[in-house]
Amino acid sequence: MSNYDHVAGRSVERLAALSDGIFGVGMTLLVLDLRPPLIEVIHGEHGLASALVSILPQLVMYMMSFLTLCIFWVGQQTQLNHLERSDRHLTWINLAFLFAVTLLPFSTKLLAEFYAFRTALLEYWFNILLLGAGLYSTWGYAFRHSLLKADMPADVPAVVCRRIVAAQSLYALGALLCVIDTRVSIAAIVIVQLYYAVSPGFRARRQAPGGRAEARRN
Amino acid sequence: MSNYDHVAGRSVERLAALSDGIFGVGMTLLVLDLRPPLIEVIHGEHGLASALVSILPQLVMYMMSFLTLCIFWVGQQTQLNHLERSDRHLTWINLAFLFAVTLLPFSTKLLAEFYAFRTALLEYWFNILLLGAGLYSTWGYAFRHSLLKADMPADVPAVVCRRIVAAQSLYALGALLCVIDTRVSIAAIVIVQLYYAVSPGFRARRQAPGGRAEARRN
Amino acid sequence: MSNYDHVAGRSVERLAALSDGIFGVGMTLLVLDLRPPLIEVIHGEHGLASALVSILPQLVMYMMSFLTLCIFWVGQQTQLNHLERSDRHLTWINLAFLFAVTLLPFSTKLLAEFYAFRTALLEYWFNILLLGAGLYSTWGYAFRHSLLKADMPADVPAVVCRRIVAAQSLYALGALLCVIDTRVSIAAIVIVQLYYAVSPGFRARRQAPGGRAEARRN
Amino acid sequence: MSNYDHVAGRSVERLAALSDGIFGVGMTLLVLDLRPPLIEVIHGEHGLASALVSILPQLVMYMMSFLTLCIFWVGQQTQLNHLERSDRHLTWINLAFLFAVTLLPFSTKLLAEFYAFRTALLEYWFNILLLGAGLYSTWGYAFRHSLLKADMPADVPAVVCRRIVAAQSLYALGALLCVIDTRVSIAAIVIVQLYYAVSPGFRARRQAPGGRAEARRN
Repeated sequence: MSNYDHVAGRSVERLAALSDGIFGVGMTLLVLDLRPPLIEVIHGEHGLASALVSILPQLVMYMMSFLTLCIFWVGQQTQLNHLERSDRHLTWINLAFLFAVTLLPFSTKLLAEFYAFRTALLEYWFNILLLGAGLYSTWGYAFRHSLLKADMPADVPAVVCRRIVAAQSLYALGALLCVIDTRVSIAAIVIVQLYYAVSPGFRARRQAPGGRAEARRN
Repeated sequence: MSNYDHVAGRSVERLAALSDGIFGVGMTLLVLDLRPPLIEVIHGEHGLASALVSILPQLVMYMMSFLTLCIFWVGQQTQLNHLERSDRHLTWINLAFLFAVTLLPFSTKLLAEFYAFRTALLEYWFNILLLGAGLYSTWGYAFRHSLLKADMPADVPAVVCRRIVAAQSLYALGALLCVIDTRVSIAAIVIVQLYYAVSPGFRARRQAPGGRAEARRN
Repeated sequence: MSNYDHVAGRSVERLAALSDGIFGVGMTLLVLDLRPPLIEVIHGEHGLASALVSILPQLVMYMMSFLTLCIFWVGQQTQLNHLERSDRHLTWINLAFLFAVTLLPFSTKLLAEFYAFRTALLEYWFNILLLGAGLYSTWGYAFRHSLLKADMPADVPAVVCRRIVAAQSLYALGALLCVIDTRVSIAAIVIVQLYYAVSPGFRARRQAPGGRAEARRN
Repeated sequence: MSNYDHVAGRSVERLAALSDGIFGVGMTLLVLDLRPPLIEVIHGEHGLASALVSILPQLVMYMMSFLTLCIFWVGQQTQLNHLERSDRHLTWINLAFLFAVTLLPFSTKLLAEFYAFRTALLEYWFNILLLGAGLYSTWGYAFRHSLLKADMPADVPAVVCRRIVAAQSLYALGALLCVIDTRVSIAAIVIVQLYYAVSPGFRARRQAPGGRAEARRN
């Protein structure tokens, strides 16, 4: 049995290594689509400065996608850290999650080009929904098949699920705001993301002193 | 001797790390070739939506290749997990396998462009054959040179070989269907892939309760 | 508690793995922008040789950026090596640092195109400033929240901070020289970088014999 | 002191991880430059087949570069595996080696475009020379500063150096053959590479039974 644990342990490690590779490439390539202006059309310092200002909206879009990838990387990392072991179905659920990760650069380019189009915004939101569904399925499967670490406080699995559902509800609400204007939607999604990046431990720490809060802090 | 084991152990780890890098880059770059439509030719939401629908066949092709990479990543991971140690010939066999991995984005682009051409389909199938030959050679070499873990049930090596041969026979059969239509071939290959992604443990678990089934589940 | 340490330890490892992925992709892609001349415009060996000489300034720019990435990779590595554990805020500070890393290929392309423009040089310097701010924030946060290893000599945290501030002051001074000529600025920044790459342990080793010097040598 | 060993140990690990990232991206991107023919110029199966045959010379060039990267990846891996610990100077020597690695895709594209030009061939050879110099410097530095593992047989360091010098002499000889024809040079370099990939343990094993041969086998 010790052999099996060892094999399974390595399995999680390689899944983590593949994920870090995919997230790393995705995060780097996002910004690579930001191209400097062509030298032929720039005349003097002032021209270059205003050309750089004009690509700021694109930069904002790429920062949003970088933030999205970070949020889901942290989420996946936390889940994998709490796995006692893995099995092949969990691996395949995570590979489907990684497919959604590789789609994000496409969704970002689409939204950066067509930020005033509701179709592009909904496609972007659908990508975020896929990412959330991937995390939710991973966690649910791990819980049902007792792959989670035994020393985890009993309410952690439910808290993680509630957290994913809450975040996805806010994203869906943000996407819905595109009936007003797609820019309102984008602003709403960025605000939700910043909230989860900066202060997500806030409520958890207030209601749960001890081991549970630490489980959620990673 | 403890020193040698340590060195060999690290060797497998670095081979795994290089593989995860190559698979990760390959998986990410597949979808990067999916380009959003040009903004000049899109007029209104309806135009964008139908432009997105028109790239769906390309998306299917990229999903098929992502699936291919996943299947062979899981296959290689399982093999490396069962190695007691590595040596330089095994490393070189695996590097040849990784060359076939780096060829897949090319084969995918070729098939996505020329999906109605039998030449493109056969080139794609040849790439899958190379991947299978790489896994088969790795496993065969490891078996003949006693690099596999000692506590593995005696019939596992043969089961792994049969599994690779069975899968490759089905792929070859799928490729043969291109005498009817290349789209029939593509559909057949995708079905074989989904079968291996979703249910490959089925027969193994029925005939082998205990450690052997677990060995195959990873 | 042993569970928490284990989780936190893995957290640093995955942050390191993601960082190595992002730095590795960034370093490789820098040089990929160096394109060979077009075959149509080259006539004979002499033409090719002079075409290669004419892209030397670009090569220098890419070497400078490779050097920048190396310096900050070594800096981040040293910091992560001295962490006893991590928490989610430290992770997010490091993800912001990694965003600055992904921006560098853009800043490099901009400066390679517009090396005579002060705007491009200042944008490049701003990127270096962001990288320095990322390292400074990481270290400061780790110090204030007792995430550093307990057996570190008492003055190491302050020495690391002073080192970052000193380097950033020299970079700022170098950037300021662009009021004379942007090429003077570039030369100054390269000299500062080479100094930190080749001899940064000099002062540390003179004033600190024993464990402290070793802590800084990595 | 145990703390220092731990820090230095992790340092080698991160250097290995960064290297695997850079090698992995480099290997994947080499083949990515292989583009399928344009659909507009292809008429029928026969046209596609002959278009694929016409890019075979390019494929050979990319295989040669993949082989080069593999050879130097195996070489660096062996060196890092034999390090007891690392220090910052060794890290910087290895980062210079990695810069030569990132240059190889450029050298490859240059040679694939201009394979009949001696300038392109000599630039490619110069890149291989830089890679060899990087490995030689790493090993020499590690030997002089006692960073190698203590249980290594006494003659291994000299054998490794001789091996690098022998390989580089053969590469230089191959490059010299370009006075006859660059294609003769390319063939000679490929033959040297295949010799080192397939049979490099031959002479070592004959003269050195025991631990030494194993040291060289990785």
